[in-house]
Order: sequence, then structure tokens, then C-alpha cells
Amino acid sequence: MTTLKLTIAYNGTHFKGWQYQPKMRTVQGVLEKTIQKVLGEPIKVTGASRTDAGVHAIGQVVRVQYHCSLLAENFQFVMNRALPDDIVIKSVEEVSVDFHPIAHTESKIYHYTINNAPLRDPFKESFSWYVREPVIMDRVNEAIKIFLGEHDFQSFCAAGSIVKSTVRTIYSIEIIQKNPDDFVFTFHGNGFLYNMIRIITAVLIRVGQGKMTLEEVEHILVSKNRNLVPWTAPAHGLCLISIFYEKSEEVFE
Amino acid sequence: MTTLKLTIAYNGTHFKGWQYQPKMRTVQGVLEKTIQKVLGEPIKVTGASRTDAGVHAIGQVVRVQYHCSLLAENFQFVMNRALPDDIVIKSVEEVSVDFHPIAHTESKIYHYTINNAPLRDPFKESFSWYVREPVIMDRVNEAIKIFLGEHDFQSFCAAGSIVKSTVRTIYSIEIIQKNPDDFVFTFHGNGFLYNMIRIITAVLIRVGQGKMTLEEVEHILVSKNRNLVPWTAPAHGLCLISIFYEKSEEVFE
Repeated sequence: MTTLKLTIAYNGTHFKGWQYQPKMRTVQGVLEKTIQKVLGEPIKVTGASRTDAGVHAIGQVVRVQYHCSLLAENFQFVMNRALPDDIVIKSVEEVSVDFHPIAHTESKIYHYTINNAPLRDPFKESFSWYVREPVIMDRVNEAIKIFLGEHDFQSFCAAGSIVKSTVRTIYSIEIIQKNPDDFVFTFHGNGFLYNMIRIITAVLIRVGQGKMTLEEVEHILVSKNRNLVPWTAPAHGLCLISIFYEKSEEVFE
Repeated sequence: MTTLKLTIAYNGTHFKGWQYQPKMRTVQGVLEKTIQKVLGEPIKVTGASRTDAGVHAIGQVVRVQYHCSLLAENFQFVMNRALPDDIVIKSVEEVSVDFHPIAHTESKIYHYTINNAPLRDPFKESFSWYVREPVIMDRVNEAIKIFLGEHDFQSFCAAGSIVKSTVRTIYSIEIIQKNPDDFVFTFHGNGFLYNMIRIITAVLIRVGQGKMTLEEVEHILVSKNRNLVPWTAPAHGLCLISIFYEKSEEVFE
């Protein structure tokens, strides 16, 4: 059996998210169907991140295992020809059979992009969150400090998700101004709860607009109550950038 | 009656082109429906360019006339709130009742974007033409010289289009390299026939790939025979940038 670690990129606009769902166009579904068709054997793939509908990726990691004789070095070219235009395999690495893209994850980087301008831009609507009211990034940077380090992020986790622990560590949140109107928030952490980045981003923007104080943010974090945060930034501003693995099996884009 | 000259931008991906078609989502259709709904009176708009399905615009010019009392200075804000995310009114100017967006056009600028890289990029698929094989831009620049000036572009006009004359003047075609993989071809001319830019672009790329000689291009131009050019670059690489008007009524983005 051949075990491959794929690094893939996709434009999430026309996918109902990563995870396979019958009759829905999902990234996992399209990958499995395509690989299966080319190799002629049943295929299940495992992705490192279950990105939501509309969320993009330039560094999703996927494990695929197959029995046929296709060489690892030919896999990328053959599959990229068969895949639709909105998914591409960026690199392929042959790994040991026990590699697990979720269990062995060490940390992840995501980008969340804000378009903050008086007029919305029709070309950015699928790739950023359009925020009309001015956001003071110095204020946002003050609020960011509250989130850094290890915390119980229960207040910043979408209702209904079941996880063993809601404790996560955020190593950094950096704001990069790409041009006068576009700001990229880079989140680096050991893991993120369901919708966590989108909920934190919505709170950060409210602080930057003067609609919330730092004390309110601190209160929400310590209260561990999701009902205090009714806001979630839209999916299309989010992009999975890279996933780092233990034992220096690094993946970086 | 109020007559306005609008400059609008749209992401052409989810439109069946500019021109109104029953039951189809077109830019003209969406504009008319939206303005009509807000103003409560029947509205017909006239666009300077009938862009095709998938073609984008950042400087389309549109004339709208209405009888109700909405002030020109409030039109942009009110309509942008009512329009979908993939169209935006960038500016509004009150003009004389005899302004005609097509008849008074002096020249137009279009961009055609090529993505020339070993791997396609899922985020560029709607906004550029992905060309895998290397294109030598020095060769393209040689071929560009053939098209400059006044010519009968009959060979470069989509079959079935009816125009009085197929003579047009191209003032310039410039190639701007945006990054290692992306090249923007800027076309400036007094007007372009149906599909003319997309057909010329397809020919230029073939020259750049060594699949056509300069002599062949010259032969096609003088032969005035569309059947010699079976290639048309895809719509999604094309974007209408700006339209210039006589009497220094300039529109430039």
C-alpha cells in the first residue's frame, strides 16, 4: 500500500465545505471520487482540517492510501489533470503508513482577511469580509493580547460541537496590512475549536469599531459562555494556510 | 427627468453577461430590477459595453434616467445598499439628457490577464486564463506590433456579429508583469469588435508559445477571414477597465 501526504489548495466558494456529504459538492467528496475514478479502487481520504462551506485553503493536508501501482511521483500530475479548476494538489510526499494528518498535527496557521473600505469591492466578496465602518487596528492589537497563550476558549466555540477539551493555545495573532483597505489576520495556534477564529475575529472587529471594550472581551473569555458572543465573521474571509507536524514533518506554504 | 452617468464594477462570474435576457441573471437585468424597485418607476439602462458572460468590469459606464425626486448625490449610496455583492456603483455624475454612453465613446481600455505557471491556482481561475505551457513575452511583443494602428479586423471578429465596419484602431497593447506568473495585457483602442480582444489574445499566446509565426499572424490579418483563427481566449480573463468620452468627459479608473 502507498501512503501519500498531499498538500492541496482550494477555492472554497463552490464547495459545501471539506467533509463528505451525500449529494453535496464537498472537497473530500470531489477528491475521493476523482482519485477513485483514476485509480479504479475505492478510496477514502483524511483531511487535517474540516473546513466549513466557503472557507478556502492553500495548505490543507490530506492523507491518501491506495493499492494500485501508480508511482507517488506521478500522482500529482495525473490527479491535477482530473481535478476541477478549484482544487489543486500543490505537493505530494510519500510517508509511512502510520502517518495521521489529524493526530500528528502540532500547530496550524489560518488567515482571516478583512476588507475595510467605504465601498465594497465585487472582486473581493468571496475572499474577505467586507466591513464598512472604520476599524482602528491599534485597538484590535490591544484586544489580541487577551487571546494569546493558553485559555479555555469555550465562549469562542460554536454551539453544538463536541470536543474533549476546549483549552487551546494561541501562539500569535498578527495583523498585516496588504494595501490601504485589506488587512490579513494571521492566527497561529496548536489547534482551533469549531468557528473559533471566526468568532474571535468578529469580536476583534467590534473592539476596533469601538463597540466593545477590552474589559468586555476579558469577561467573555473568563465566563466560558458562548451565549455572550452572538457574532461569527463570515466563512469566506477564512483561509487555512499551513499545518505543522511533529518530528519536523513540516508543511509550510 | 434626471440623467446620470454611472461608473460601475462587477464580478462577471455569476452573470450571463451585460445584456438583459429574460429569466437570466444579467448585469443590465439586475441593475434595472434594483433601480426600478427602489424608485418605483420603470427603468431602462444603457451600458457602454455589452460584456459577455464571465467578463468582468471595473469601469463600465451606464446611463440611467428617472423621473422621481431622488437626488443624484444620494443615488450611489441608496443603490449600493440594494445591489447584490457582485456589483457596485463606483461613481455617479449628473449629465445632460443627450449623453449617450455608446455613441459618444472615444476609446476604451480592457485588461486581459494570463496566469502562466506550472500549476494552476484555484483562486485565479475566475479572473485569468490559465496557460500551462511557457509563453515567451518577447515574442508576444513582436506580434503585438502587427496589430497596432488602424486595420480591418474582420479576421478577429466572432462569426455572426453584424457591424457596419470592421475597421478599428488599436492605440496600444502593453504587457505588465504583475508577479512571476501573472501577465496583464492592456488593450487601448477606439473600439473593439465582438470577441476581438479574446481572439487577438489567443493568437498572441500561440505566438509566444512558438506555435505560430509572425508571418502567419500578418497573413491572417490581411486575409480578412475569420475561419483562419479558430481560437478564442476564455471570457473570465477579460476585464473592462475604462471608457473615455469626447469633450473631455473622461472616465478613468
